[in-house]
Amino acid sequence: MSKGVSLQVLADMVGGVICGDPEITVFGVGDLATAKEGEITFLLKPSEAHVLRETRASCVVAVEGVEADIPVVQVENPVLAITRIHQFFLDSVPVANQGIAADTLMGKGCTIASSVATCPRVTIGSGVILGERVFLESGVVVGDDVVIGDDCHLMANVVVRAKTILGQRVIIQSGTVIGSDGYGYVYDGKGSHIKRPHVGNVVIEDDVDIGANCCVDRATFGTTRIGRGTKIDNLVQIAHNVIIGQSVLIVAQCAVGGSSSLGNGVVMGGHAAVADHVNVGDGAMIAAKSGVRGRVKAGDVVSGTPAIAHKTWLRASSAFPKLPQLVKEIRRLEKVVAALEEKIS
Amino acid sequence: MSKGVSLQVLADMVGGVICGDPEITVFGVGDLATAKEGEITFLLKPSEAHVLRETRASCVVAVEGVEADIPVVQVENPVLAITRIHQFFLDSVPVANQGIAADTLMGKGCTIASSVATCPRVTIGSGVILGERVFLESGVVVGDDVVIGDDCHLMANVVVRAKTILGQRVIIQSGTVIGSDGYGYVYDGKGSHIKRPHVGNVVIEDDVDIGANCCVDRATFGTTRIGRGTKIDNLVQIAHNVIIGQSVLIVAQCAVGGSSSLGNGVVMGGHAAVADHVNVGDGAMIAAKSGVRGRVKAGDVVSGTPAIAHKTWLRASSAFPKLPQLVKEIRRLEKVVAALEEKIS
Amino acid sequence: MSKGVSLQVLADMVGGVICGDPEITVFGVGDLATAKEGEITFLLKPSEAHVLRETRASCVVAVEGVEADIPVVQVENPVLAITRIHQFFLDSVPVANQGIAADTLMGKGCTIASSVATCPRVTIGSGVILGERVFLESGVVVGDDVVIGDDCHLMANVVVRAKTILGQRVIIQSGTVIGSDGYGYVYDGKGSHIKRPHVGNVVIEDDVDIGANCCVDRATFGTTRIGRGTKIDNLVQIAHNVIIGQSVLIVAQCAVGGSSSLGNGVVMGGHAAVADHVNVGDGAMIAAKSGVRGRVKAGDVVSGTPAIAHKTWLRASSAFPKLPQLVKEIRRLEKVVAALEEKIS
Repeated sequence: MSKGVSLQVLADMVGGVICGDPEITVFGVGDLATAKEGEITFLLKPSEAHVLRETRASCVVAVEGVEADIPVVQVENPVLAITRIHQFFLDSVPVANQGIAADTLMGKGCTIASSVATCPRVTIGSGVILGERVFLESGVVVGDDVVIGDDCHLMANVVVRAKTILGQRVIIQSGTVIGSDGYGYVYDGKGSHIKRPHVGNVVIEDDVDIGANCCVDRATFGTTRIGRGTKIDNLVQIAHNVIIGQSVLIVAQCAVGGSSSLGNGVVMGGHAAVADHVNVGDGAMIAAKSGVRGRVKAGDVVSGTPAIAHKTWLRASSAFPKLPQLVKEIRRLEKVVAALEEKIS
Repeated sequence: MSKGVSLQVLADMVGGVICGDPEITVFGVGDLATAKEGEITFLLKPSEAHVLRETRASCVVAVEGVEADIPVVQVENPVLAITRIHQFFLDSVPVANQGIAADTLMGKGCTIASSVATCPRVTIGSGVILGERVFLESGVVVGDDVVIGDDCHLMANVVVRAKTILGQRVIIQSGTVIGSDGYGYVYDGKGSHIKRPHVGNVVIEDDVDIGANCCVDRATFGTTRIGRGTKIDNLVQIAHNVIIGQSVLIVAQCAVGGSSSLGNGVVMGGHAAVADHVNVGDGAMIAAKSGVRGRVKAGDVVSGTPAIAHKTWLRASSAFPKLPQLVKEIRRLEKVVAALEEKIS
Repeated sequence: MSKGVSLQVLADMVGGVICGDPEITVFGVGDLATAKEGEITFLLKPSEAHVLRETRASCVVAVEGVEADIPVVQVENPVLAITRIHQFFLDSVPVANQGIAADTLMGKGCTIASSVATCPRVTIGSGVILGERVFLESGVVVGDDVVIGDDCHLMANVVVRAKTILGQRVIIQSGTVIGSDGYGYVYDGKGSHIKRPHVGNVVIEDDVDIGANCCVDRATFGTTRIGRGTKIDNLVQIAHNVIIGQSVLIVAQCAVGGSSSLGNGVVMGGHAAVADHVNVGDGAMIAAKSGVRGRVKAGDVVSGTPAIAHKTWLRASSAFPKLPQLVKEIRRLEKVVAALEEKIS
C-alpha cells in the first residue's frame, strides 16, 4: 500500500470541492463494493447515494449535491477524477527498474535505452531501437528493425514483426501480433491463389492501446497506421493498409478491412466490421454487430448489415417482429378489396 | 495401446446391457470410420445401424433395439457412455510425471506441489501457488500471486496474469490470455481517452474449460468470475467484471460485454454477443450470431440483432425475403383502393 | 537491394510486351506511392493512368492501352505480373541458412532435414519430422509426432499440437494454434458437461496459408482437414472434424462449425459463420457477416442470417428500412377499406 496523503491534496489534484474533513488521510482507491477503510471511492449515479451507507471507504468522489456521512469530493466527472487519483496512487509506489533480464536475446546493431526493462525469455531481432523505460514481458518477440518509443509496454507473448514503428506510451496486451502479413492474394487463372509479398510496415502512434490477441497486418506496400490516442479492445482485426485516425475507439472482435480508413474519433461497437476500401468519416459511430459496406460520412451513426442510419435501423428493427402479422393483414386486405371490387363492378 | 479389458467390465462401468459375447477383450475406442479391430465404437443414430456392417470395431455402444453382427452394449446415452469408456482407456495409460523442467523460471515465495509438471520454457512469477498435478506446457507465462488449483492444465503459450485464481481441473488451451486489462476508458473532455486502472482479478472456478486464443479481462475493481463447470470455445471475449454462472456453454467467437452477467446453464451460440451491463437469466439460450442489448429473462430463447424471442425471430426471418413482394402488393392495393374510392364518391 | 535486371528479362518472365526502352535496369518493386527510382510499379485501373506522372518508379506494369512517360510492360493481369516480378526480386536476395539455433529443444526420435532453420527459443516434441528448408521462428512450440513438410514457415509463437501433419509450403502466422481440442461435450443429465476426448488430428495440405491468431481444432476421431491451396485470414475458427476443400478463401474472423465441410473454391467473407454439420458445395460464396445454418449448394451465393440467396437478400435488405412506412401504409389502407366497406354495405 502506498503512503497516505490528505484528502485536500487529492481534491486539489482534480479541482474538487470537499464537503467534510479535508485533513483525513487517504491510502488508496476502491470501488463501492471493494474499498477498505482509509480508501477513497466514487459514486457513478447520484441516485444511488444510499449505497454509500454501506461502503467501508473513508471518503468519496461524487457530483455536486450528493450527501454522505463521509467526506465528499465534489467534481463534475467522478470517473475522470477517480481515475486521476488512482493513477497518482499507482505511480506513487516506486517500481524497481529490473533492468534487462540476463537471458534476453538480441540481434546485431540494436540501440537500447539504459532504462529499458525486460522479463526473462524476451527475443529481440537486429537493428531494433528501444526507447526509455520500454518494458517487455516474457515471451515477447520483436522483429528486425523495429522501433519502440519511450514508455511502451508489451505484455507477455506479444509479437511485433519486422519494421514496425511504435510511438510513445503504446500498450500492447498479451498475444497480440503486430505486422503480420496481410490477406492479399491474386488469382492465377489456373486454380491457385498466389500470395502477394507484403513489404510495407505498421506504424502505431503515441498513446495507442491495443488489447489481447489482436492482429494488425503490415501494408502490402507503404504503411498500416493507427493514429494517436486510439484504443483497441481484444481480438480485433486491422487489415493491411488500413489508416485509423486519432482517438478512435474499437470494441472487441471488430474488423477493419484492407485499405479502409477510419477518421478521427470514430467509434466501433463490438463485433462490427468495415469492409475493404471503405472510408469512415470523422466522428462516425458504427453500432455493435454492424457490417459497413460503403462510405460513412463524418458524424453519421449507422447500424445493421448493410449499415444504414441508426435511427432508421432502430425503427425498422422494431417493426421487424411484426412482419408475419403484416403479411396476414395484406392478405386480408387483398381479399376484402377484391370483394369490394366485385361488388362495385 | 492400453491393456485390454473385457466388454463386461466396460458395460458395468456405464450401466449397459450386453447383447452378444461379454467376454471379448477391448483395447480402445474409435468412431465408426476409424475404429480398429479390438476397439469399441458407438452409434449415434439407430437409423444408421446398417453402417455397422462396415466398421472394423469389435463391439459397439448403442441404444436399445440396435442389432448388429458384433456385440452391442445397450445404454440410454451412447455418447455419454463412450466418453466414459474412452476416458477410462486414456486414464489407464500411465503417464510418467515428468516433473518440473530444469529451465523453469520462478519468482520468489512460490508454493509448488510436488506433483507439478512443466514442459521446458515455462515462466512463473512470484508468490504463485500451484496445486497437485498442475501441468504447464511450454511458453506458459504465469504472473505474480496467481493461484492454480489441483489438476489444472495450461497448454502451450497460455498467459495467466497477476492475481488470477483458478480452481481445480481447469483446462486452458493455447494462446489464451487470462487477466488482461479491461477496455475501460474515461474521456477527459479534451480529446483524449484516459485508461482506467484495472486492479481487480479473474477467478475461474472448478471444471471450467477455456478454448484457444480467448481473452478473459480482469475486473476494474473486484473480480471477473467464470462459474463452475462452464465450457468456453475458442476466440471468445469475456470483458471486465463479467459474472458467468455454472455450466454455461459459450461457443466460438462470442463476446460478453463489461459488467454483464450470465446465469447458470446459459447457452450462447457461436458469434453471439451480449452488450455491456446486461443480465441474462438462468437457462437462457442465445442463438448463434445474435446481438443481445437488453435483459434476457431466465429460460428465454432469443435470436437476432437486437435479440427477440427466437420463435418470433424465426417467423419474421422467414417473412423477410418476401419484403420486396409485399411492397409491390401494397403499391397495387393502394392503386386499387384509390380507384375504388373514386368510383364510389 | 537486389542486383538489377533488364526490363526485358522481367517482361519475358510474365509474358508482357514492352512499350519503351527494354534495356533499362530494374532493382525492385514498389507501389505507385512508394516506388523509388530504379523500381518497377504497377497500375490497377487504366483510368488512373494520370497518376503515373507523379510516381518515381522507372517503369510500370499495366494493361494494354495505358500510356506513360516511362516504359510500360503490357500484360493481361498487372497484379499477377507484379506479384511474380516481386517474388523474383525477393527470391534473388540470398538468405543465409541460419541453421538450427543452439538453444532449440527437441524430444527423442526426431527426423530433421539438414536445411531446417530455427530462431532461438523453439521447442520441438518427440517423433517430429521436419522437411527441407522448414523455418520455425522464436516461441514456436511443436508437439509430439508432428510432421512438417518441405518449405513450411511457422512464425513466432505458433503452436502446432501433437500429431498434426502439414504438407509443403504451408505458412502459419504468429499466435495461431493448430490441433487444439474441439468443443465437444456430452451432458451427463445431472448438471455437468463432460469433455469428450479428442484423439483425432489436423491435416493441412500443400500451399495452405493460415493467418495470425487462428484456431484449427483437432478431430474428435479422424482428421480435421484443410485442402491444398486454401488461404485463411486472421482470427479464424475451424472446428473439429471440419473438411475444407482446395483453394478456399476464408476472410478474417469467420468460423466453420464442427463436422461441416466446405467444397473446393468456396469463398467466405469476413465475420461469416457456418454452423455445425453443414455442407457448403463447391464454388459457393458466403457473404461477409452471414450466418449459414443449412446446406449451401455448389455455386450458390448466399447472404444474411439465416443465409438466403444473395440477390433476394439484397432486395429484401434494401426494402428493410421502409418497413415502418409500410406499416403506416397498411394501417391507412385498412381504414380506407373499412370506410369503403361501410359505404357500400
